[in-house]
Amino acid sequence: VGKSGSHITLAKLAEMTGGTVEGNADVLISGVCSLDHPRADHIALAVNPSTIRHEAGAENAAAYIVARPVQIPGASLLVHENPRLAFTIALRHFYPEEKTIGGIDPNAQVARDADVRPSAHIGPFAVVESKAKIGERAEIGAGCYIGAGSVIGDETQLYANVTVLHDVAIGKRCIIHSGAVIGSDGFGFTPTESGNIKVPQTGRVEIGDDVEIGAGTTIDRATLDATRIGDDVKIDNLVQIAHNVQIGPHTRIAAQAGLSGRVIIEGNVVVGGQAGFQNGITVGEGSVIAGRAGVTRHVPPHSRVSGYPARDHKKALALLAAQNRLPEILERLESIERMLEKTVESS
Amino acid sequence: VGKSGSHITLAKLAEMTGGTVEGNADVLISGVCSLDHPRADHIALAVNPSTIRHEAGAENAAAYIVARPVQIPGASLLVHENPRLAFTIALRHFYPEEKTIGGIDPNAQVARDADVRPSAHIGPFAVVESKAKIGERAEIGAGCYIGAGSVIGDETQLYANVTVLHDVAIGKRCIIHSGAVIGSDGFGFTPTESGNIKVPQTGRVEIGDDVEIGAGTTIDRATLDATRIGDDVKIDNLVQIAHNVQIGPHTRIAAQAGLSGRVIIEGNVVVGGQAGFQNGITVGEGSVIAGRAGVTRHVPPHSRVSGYPARDHKKALALLAAQNRLPEILERLESIERMLEKTVESS
Amino acid sequence: VGKSGSHITLAKLAEMTGGTVEGNADVLISGVCSLDHPRADHIALAVNPSTIRHEAGAENAAAYIVARPVQIPGASLLVHENPRLAFTIALRHFYPEEKTIGGIDPNAQVARDADVRPSAHIGPFAVVESKAKIGERAEIGAGCYIGAGSVIGDETQLYANVTVLHDVAIGKRCIIHSGAVIGSDGFGFTPTESGNIKVPQTGRVEIGDDVEIGAGTTIDRATLDATRIGDDVKIDNLVQIAHNVQIGPHTRIAAQAGLSGRVIIEGNVVVGGQAGFQNGITVGEGSVIAGRAGVTRHVPPHSRVSGYPARDHKKALALLAAQNRLPEILERLESIERMLEKTVESS
Repeated sequence: VGKSGSHITLAKLAEMTGGTVEGNADVLISGVCSLDHPRADHIALAVNPSTIRHEAGAENAAAYIVARPVQIPGASLLVHENPRLAFTIALRHFYPEEKTIGGIDPNAQVARDADVRPSAHIGPFAVVESKAKIGERAEIGAGCYIGAGSVIGDETQLYANVTVLHDVAIGKRCIIHSGAVIGSDGFGFTPTESGNIKVPQTGRVEIGDDVEIGAGTTIDRATLDATRIGDDVKIDNLVQIAHNVQIGPHTRIAAQAGLSGRVIIEGNVVVGGQAGFQNGITVGEGSVIAGRAGVTRHVPPHSRVSGYPARDHKKALALLAAQNRLPEILERLESIERMLEKTVESS
Repeated sequence: VGKSGSHITLAKLAEMTGGTVEGNADVLISGVCSLDHPRADHIALAVNPSTIRHEAGAENAAAYIVARPVQIPGASLLVHENPRLAFTIALRHFYPEEKTIGGIDPNAQVARDADVRPSAHIGPFAVVESKAKIGERAEIGAGCYIGAGSVIGDETQLYANVTVLHDVAIGKRCIIHSGAVIGSDGFGFTPTESGNIKVPQTGRVEIGDDVEIGAGTTIDRATLDATRIGDDVKIDNLVQIAHNVQIGPHTRIAAQAGLSGRVIIEGNVVVGGQAGFQNGITVGEGSVIAGRAGVTRHVPPHSRVSGYPARDHKKALALLAAQNRLPEILERLESIERMLEKTVESS
Repeated sequence: VGKSGSHITLAKLAEMTGGTVEGNADVLISGVCSLDHPRADHIALAVNPSTIRHEAGAENAAAYIVARPVQIPGASLLVHENPRLAFTIALRHFYPEEKTIGGIDPNAQVARDADVRPSAHIGPFAVVESKAKIGERAEIGAGCYIGAGSVIGDETQLYANVTVLHDVAIGKRCIIHSGAVIGSDGFGFTPTESGNIKVPQTGRVEIGDDVEIGAGTTIDRATLDATRIGDDVKIDNLVQIAHNVQIGPHTRIAAQAGLSGRVIIEGNVVVGGQAGFQNGITVGEGSVIAGRAGVTRHVPPHSRVSGYPARDHKKALALLAAQNRLPEILERLESIERMLEKTVESS
């Protein structure tokens, strides 16, 4: 049963999601299950309806979320043009976010001149340094560190063991996962004959509203000015964001991607896992960067690139197809050479 | 000298490992050394015996573990068909695991309704949340976080600063290294015109017995159901395991590999460093995935794949060889074209 | 204004950096700004002077650091043969490192037999284990863990939430960023029919002076002997350094690079982001390894390699150029085949 303890009819759920019902609109739904582990009073997402196994005698889901009506004897359907959206709305209904109870744990250490809203929660062994600000209903998990002068916006949640260094600003309703480090020094050294001299990293990190940052992800502060992450940007685990990177709103970045210094990602970009970006590259609005792509040049808006070095995805596929034919190319070349040799011999 | 303080004859060590002695069976061994830094009363592994420098007048190892008898004047040998196994057994004898002394550090914070076995140890500044269970002789290092309802099995060791979120189950005799994060949210968002809507991640993480998880590795919880790591799986540092991944027993995964959502790795698979796997891919039992391989399709059991996109390793090598001949192919093509031009001209 | 609160003339700054002034030598400089956000009493670096926008009516930088004199009406110049060095010296002047105030936070836990110099600072919720040594003016951030017998050199700074396991030696004036883990176990298992047997990791980690280690980077201890990082080595975020790796002095390693077990990097090497190195590879003195290079063979000194498998960079570029011509090669091959077919038919 979902955490909310709520039971609603399929009709009501269809109304909430903007979908329609096929079958029994009065069946009660109390949670969301997977197709692999169906549960009797739950609803399941079936992106591909052929994967539904609704068998008499076995435990079945009460209903399925589908894109188009299908014939499944005994099963009820919630038909929705965007089944994943209906699934998301259902999940959010049955598993609502737990509300934070304000207060500073007796085992936390908060500087006297820090500004912690009474509705915020500071967990055990967390440290909030001088002049830091923690917003309304914000949650700072156990063992977190909030450096001097940093700002955590209203309703932003930091899971346990997040490190936010000094002079970092994080907006409202953000979620930062454990092990993330925000505001570490950019990687800047000037090589000289007597060794590498560190370039002081004097800038900031500025993160917008509704941003999510994955476990173990690292975001460096700027050398000068600020590293900036726009509103509604979603970053997965173990991603590296170097100094002075700028990321536009609504962008999604999958795990282990690496953005080098001064990279600019415009808005609404999708970056695949393990992709890498050279220093100072710009990626235009709405582009899609495939997983493992190695981006060495600017990417125009609304492009789709893949491979290393990253190219237009269609060209990359054509190149790949041609590469796969290399052994065949060699054979054909040799066959021509043999034919020509004979021709020369016979002439 | 090994931590155990034990001194045993080479004969005894041979018996323990199932090998045989050549040379002085009574020489006393008190530890294991490397070939680079030989020590007089220690034994060294020599996978390749030609790298042994056993010189009169210098400090030499007392004996060498080798696969086959070799002539090394003055040196004794432990001959074993699996020298690395003999080396491992010797190391485990001389450097035994230190036993944990139970008890909760006065600086730890343990919820009243957590179940901590008296033989378990909870380090300073560690947090154990409500309804969590910590098994017999388990060790929770300094600064660790164990979320509500999570279970840590008997004799499992968490080094300092590990984060285990809520509803995670970890089996017996596991070792989790510092900085690892287990149970962070899967990366799931439904894009809409008004922005990305977070898909609640309501599932769990289930980890079997005898699992080792490297420093800084991140393992996300499932959207529904569970992300599962089988018995005896060994995962290196900075590996990303996404939501709903399933990993079969005995699998070994090297550093910085990335497993995307819903990837299934069957048992006894070996994954090289920095390899990547697309969403939903299945890798069959006993397969070997080379380092840096980018796996974009299902991999049949007992395959060996490499490259990007990952292919059968022999095909990948053939393609690579053909690629290396591309400049030569171009030259040969041009030479044919010149010849044909002449032929046409002369005809 | 820079943190130092200092105001100096451009003439004085030129003298400090070893450069010369063009324009008003008496203009007062109080900080360093970027070209994007010019500030009236600051100096900016202009590697490419054509990017300077010095416009009447707008707020402009007081002066620019340039490599060669250029004509910019109204602007003063600091001309320096190494502008980046002058910029670095200016930044270090205006944003000096803050000095640590010694003392152990009442919320830290320090073992009775640890040796903490009175001038060192131990932050809240930090743990210093038995027989560890913390040098003069060293700074151990909040939540850090220093394992038994480990040594932190004079003036070395650990930011919050760094984990240093047992038997690790770190030199003087090092900077370790948050989330880094030093001294985790090497990844060593001996597969047997009954499962993987752990190879005890009994060695150490030894880190020289003036080393910087990035956020989330992991450095494993040696199986035997030591994993070694030389003086003045600079390592970026999320880098993996496996057991027994040896890194020579002055080397710089960019983010997300991965060094497998027993890799040897000689001195003065530059490693690009996301590069990977196979077990036991040696990279010669002064070599440059491109970002994303996959190094599978020894690299001679003073080489420049790129691609996967990594090759001499010029050869890699030639191969890439030839690959890009593959569709054209196929076309030319087909055209020859058509011609030969006609010739055969007509003969």
